Amino acid sequence: MRSLIAFQGARGAFSEEAARKLLGLKTQVLPCERFEDVFRSLKTGKAAGAVVPIENTLAGSVHENYDHLQRFELPIVAETSVRIVHNLIAQNGVPFSKIKKVYSHPVALNQCLDFFSANPQIERIPFYDTAGSVKMIVEEARTDAAAIASAVAAEIYGARILRRSIESDRQNFTRFFLLRKPVYARRHPVKAGRNQSWKTSLVFTTRNIPGALFRALSAFALRDLSLTKIESRPLRGKPWEYLFYLDFLGHIDDPGAQNALNHLRELADYLRVLGCYPQGA
Amino acid sequence: MRSLIAFQGARGAFSEEAARKLLGLKTQVLPCERFEDVFRSLKTGKAAGAVVPIENTLAGSVHENYDHLQRFELPIVAETSVRIVHNLIAQNGVPFSKIKKVYSHPVALNQCLDFFSANPQIERIPFYDTAGSVKMIVEEARTDAAAIASAVAAEIYGARILRRSIESDRQNFTRFFLLRKPVYARRHPVKAGRNQSWKTSLVFTTRNIPGALFRALSAFALRDLSLTKIESRPLRGKPWEYLFYLDFLGHIDDPGAQNALNHLRELADYLRVLGCYPQGA
Repeated sequence: MRSLIAFQGARGAFSEEAARKLLGLKTQVLPCERFEDVFRSLKTGKAAGAVVPIENTLAGSVHENYDHLQRFELPIVAETSVRIVHNLIAQNGVPFSKIKKVYSHPVALNQCLDFFSANPQIERIPFYDTAGSVKMIVEEARTDAAAIASAVAAEIYGARILRRSIESDRQNFTRFFLLRKPVYARRHPVKAGRNQSWKTSLVFTTRNIPGALFRALSAFALRDLSLTKIESRPLRGKPWEYLFYLDFLGHIDDPGAQNALNHLRELADYLRVLGCYPQGA
Repeated sequence: MRSLIAFQGARGAFSEEAARKLLGLKTQVLPCERFEDVFRSLKTGKAAGAVVPIENTLAGSVHENYDHLQRFELPIVAETSVRIVHNLIAQNGVPFSKIKKVYSHPVALNQCLDFFSANPQIERIPFYDTAGSVKMIVEEARTDAAAIASAVAAEIYGARILRRSIESDRQNFTRFFLLRKPVYARRHPVKAGRNQSWKTSLVFTTRNIPGALFRALSAFALRDLSLTKIESRPLRGKPWEYLFYLDFLGHIDDPGAQNALNHLRELADYLRVLGCYPQGA
């Protein structure tokens, strides 16, 4: 049980692809229904790690997971980026010419509109998730239908890829975090080789006065620390208050990073470090 | 034709609710399949305006629409925020006790998990979109099924709301922009009363050097201009380059705003003003 990696979705979801990229092809996984269940599985020890999407190049940041990161206090220990490749997948032996219906999550169907324009004989049918649609066509032994999902889903359910990479926009990437319990993460991973770049992720709020963010960013600019992400998020119910997501390049144990965080603490009403991890590919 | 307002989705989508909030209950609309079609309809004059979602409190910024805003050069002339309220909707005369299946977009179904936990006898079935699921149950005269969608969808398709506001998280808001052709927008709307607050939205890129964003924000901080949004977006294919979305409080014709933009032009490689519009509710 200890080696299970929790993620949201069915077996073969893009989160499982991210888990394999982070931890190897033999990773044992624990699929969960909600993101909250993923965090809870790790918190309670049912899983030894968790992989969650944090932002997508088309759809933006997953605010829900930023909320869970703060609430569950589970540190980020690694990151990776996965290109979202949609494949047309059918049962073994079913040729493309027999496909009359294609099932998938509506977001995936909408990301393949050029394919459907070129194949007007094929009907699009929304399904609960991408990988689950592969499972369904295999379990129901459908000979007239295909699904749109990841290559990992085809492999897991023993189905065949009829058309690879049918998504209209190839600039579709999702960034994932690997989370561990603090005891396994040893608070923050120890620095390895000199050539390894590190990233530190944090959230903070500032008082609502003009220039508050500018002053907060001075903590990093004055120490020549590069930001790789900054994003404001309005706090609902608290007009004019904002939460900021910030990632900077540097290990949290570096003197410059320590000074920047101490400086930021003077200016921020709330500050939480979400993790320090090797910069991922 | 001139008075049509384009939006993405079926009649009764949350974008139509936003259009009514911005332009009144009698707004004539032009539903489109893709966001790109929405922008093109306005560009070609098929529609006189367009309403597009730009960010959601749970799901983040809609990067795709930021891309279209830059590409189509259609100015933002107004903004509004709509709370995403999910209602259980059935045909007239169908009581709650008869409902065995509920259709909706998977995102909407997932936002009502508490409702489904409390009603385990009801099966969730994914559908293409929220409003479209209301249309379907009415057209097919379903007596065993309901849909989850906006109140506007119930009204448009002549259906009845069985349960109001069944979403688990009430802090779910989407911000929408109203776009016009530049000729209708008169470049930037003229300032009205003294009490009206204005917002200006822009995108820019900076050179990739530490502190570049800090210097860019000094253009606003030095003039006491308050930011209401800042977000970085990595540019794919251009490692280490970022696009920034920035909103500040102020009319673009104000001397302080003019000076800030001139200052930012010195520092930014690319800068585009997306619009100047009254701060919305």
